[in-house]
Amino acid sequence: MATRRKFVFQAAALGAAPFISTRVTRALAAAAERKLGFALCGLGSLSTDQIAPALRKTAHCRLAGIITGTPAKAARWQAQYNIPARNIYNYETMHRIADNADIDVVYVVTPNAIHLENALVAAKAGKHVFCEKPMEISVERCQQMIDAVKAANRLLGIGYRCRFEPHHLECMALARERHFGAVKVIDAHFGFNIPPGVWRLKKDLAGGGPLMDVGIYCLQATRYISGEEPIWVSASTTKGDAARFSEVEESIVWESRFPSGTLSHCSSSYAAAPAGYFRVLAEQGWFGLDPAFNYGGLKGLRSDGRAINPNARDQFAVEMDDFARCILEQTPTRVPGEEGLRDVKIMMALYESARGGRPVALS
Amino acid sequence: MATRRKFVFQAAALGAAPFISTRVTRALAAAAERKLGFALCGLGSLSTDQIAPALRKTAHCRLAGIITGTPAKAARWQAQYNIPARNIYNYETMHRIADNADIDVVYVVTPNAIHLENALVAAKAGKHVFCEKPMEISVERCQQMIDAVKAANRLLGIGYRCRFEPHHLECMALARERHFGAVKVIDAHFGFNIPPGVWRLKKDLAGGGPLMDVGIYCLQATRYISGEEPIWVSASTTKGDAARFSEVEESIVWESRFPSGTLSHCSSSYAAAPAGYFRVLAEQGWFGLDPAFNYGGLKGLRSDGRAINPNARDQFAVEMDDFARCILEQTPTRVPGEEGLRDVKIMMALYESARGGRPVALS
Repeated sequence: MATRRKFVFQAAALGAAPFISTRVTRALAAAAERKLGFALCGLGSLSTDQIAPALRKTAHCRLAGIITGTPAKAARWQAQYNIPARNIYNYETMHRIADNADIDVVYVVTPNAIHLENALVAAKAGKHVFCEKPMEISVERCQQMIDAVKAANRLLGIGYRCRFEPHHLECMALARERHFGAVKVIDAHFGFNIPPGVWRLKKDLAGGGPLMDVGIYCLQATRYISGEEPIWVSASTTKGDAARFSEVEESIVWESRFPSGTLSHCSSSYAAAPAGYFRVLAEQGWFGLDPAFNYGGLKGLRSDGRAINPNARDQFAVEMDDFARCILEQTPTRVPGEEGLRDVKIMMALYESARGGRPVALS
Repeated sequence: MATRRKFVFQAAALGAAPFISTRVTRALAAAAERKLGFALCGLGSLSTDQIAPALRKTAHCRLAGIITGTPAKAARWQAQYNIPARNIYNYETMHRIADNADIDVVYVVTPNAIHLENALVAAKAGKHVFCEKPMEISVERCQQMIDAVKAANRLLGIGYRCRFEPHHLECMALARERHFGAVKVIDAHFGFNIPPGVWRLKKDLAGGGPLMDVGIYCLQATRYISGEEPIWVSASTTKGDAARFSEVEESIVWESRFPSGTLSHCSSSYAAAPAGYFRVLAEQGWFGLDPAFNYGGLKGLRSDGRAINPNARDQFAVEMDDFARCILEQTPTRVPGEEGLRDVKIMMALYESARGGRPVALS
């Protein structure tokens, strides 16, 4: 089985659908009945307010453990979620997770620049890794994460929740099926007015400003709606008030060109009121979402007046269940590390363009 | 009076509010009771479907004459609007308008690249000139128009109807009064799917593609919402199918930076279904219009859920009445030739950026 699993995960990493025999299928069906144990690494507001509650809504996952540097948080979570003491780790003890059969997946929810470090420990401990976006703060660090998880023969997924969200899936289908003809222009924005003092404003932890944090949703949308990779980007950033924005950009606008001729123009800001939307302008009509990137309450818009109104589900529950299914059924994930790396590569090109005051060609 | 009028129109052209004595004010009040005679130069769909019907809704204007190269149109309009034969001109006889006291204003509605030629004849004939947007197809030609109308001591206005439209005025006020704080990002799009064979697809008549025709509304919006002039622009264009787009761009995206730090990103297309909107993202909220640029049915959007719902008026009637009032009261117009030139200058920079594959700095 070990050899087969190795083969299977490598195939999955390569994006190929693996061959699975009837006997193995039956074994997997049995396996699918158990829930995979997730350990949350980093207990900030995303873990607290979204991921932990979402785990209770999953079919194939359970909150098995936590990794935190803050003893008070450990105590609070232990009590709230009834987590056994043996499944509670800090960053010094995290490597011992290797000996813990309760934990199948480490979900990395720490600041961006610490994703790699935590993923390396998790992979070395033989655990699957699910990592929040942005994957890391440089292409090199993304590649290191991919290599490490691959060497451990585990599965790596990036937390692109919109890739599983029914409104977004419906928009992807409208684009892919050319329901309104070819897509000509994609327009997207995501931003909010950030409070001072948070780690997201520190360059060494965040890697960048609103682009890395929320602009990445716009970038993703332009990629999964067009179904293509940008070949040319141009960007411009502003600094804003020095009190908040001494290290990262305040706002950014960018434009991209895709091989088929689709154009995109996007923005992201840490200094504008909360708003997130995208609009797809196609030959015979337009469609989009507004709000598009919230955890719930998404609203579709179509030029023909018809609704985009699928049953909404908890976005974190769906993405974690999908990752668990990929592990249990040994199939590729639609959000592999390569996908996270691609976005980081494009975001680095956007920053390069803004710094250099010139467009950047992408291969 | 002639000398005073000369002084007054030159002051108006410079954007200064002229000094007007009580005696003159009384004389102007009397003058204001008469309606200014407009001659429409170019009887395409805009004149036929919008401007001529709008003239009937004005307080200070009347359809006095027409200039057309098509005898059949002359006959049809003469019958429909009861226009005296002496007020009907073609492009060979147009200069004789100088002797026609019925006609105060020539409204130039011909293809873009013929605006200057017609404006020169009108100015030389001593008539005020109102000219459709885009003003012309080069900065030099815009300047020639400004100079000619100034030399004739007449008033020149450009048909920027949104500058008089109540929804747009309310948005301008929200931005100017910082109702939602400082404006961080402006996002705008305007486009439609153009039929083949029209003059707008011919470079020598149109000067460019969707940018010159409808993208100019987005550019205007970014300027009158920010209240600033862009200092940096970057653009990218696509060619699209050769049958329609052998001469002008199919679609364009661009981004701009304004002195205070406001950023904009816009698009325009001749290959996407009709859509036109803008969204203003400010510190404490957002607002915008969608649709924004139609002749009617505009709809406002505000992040606080409050309405942007002023009484709509015929946009062409309002802009012509304003121009007439400026003539009668000898006050500056808010849409002088200089405003038209500014947009053409920026659009030429956008094309330069797209051609050169690099941003362009503007002074």
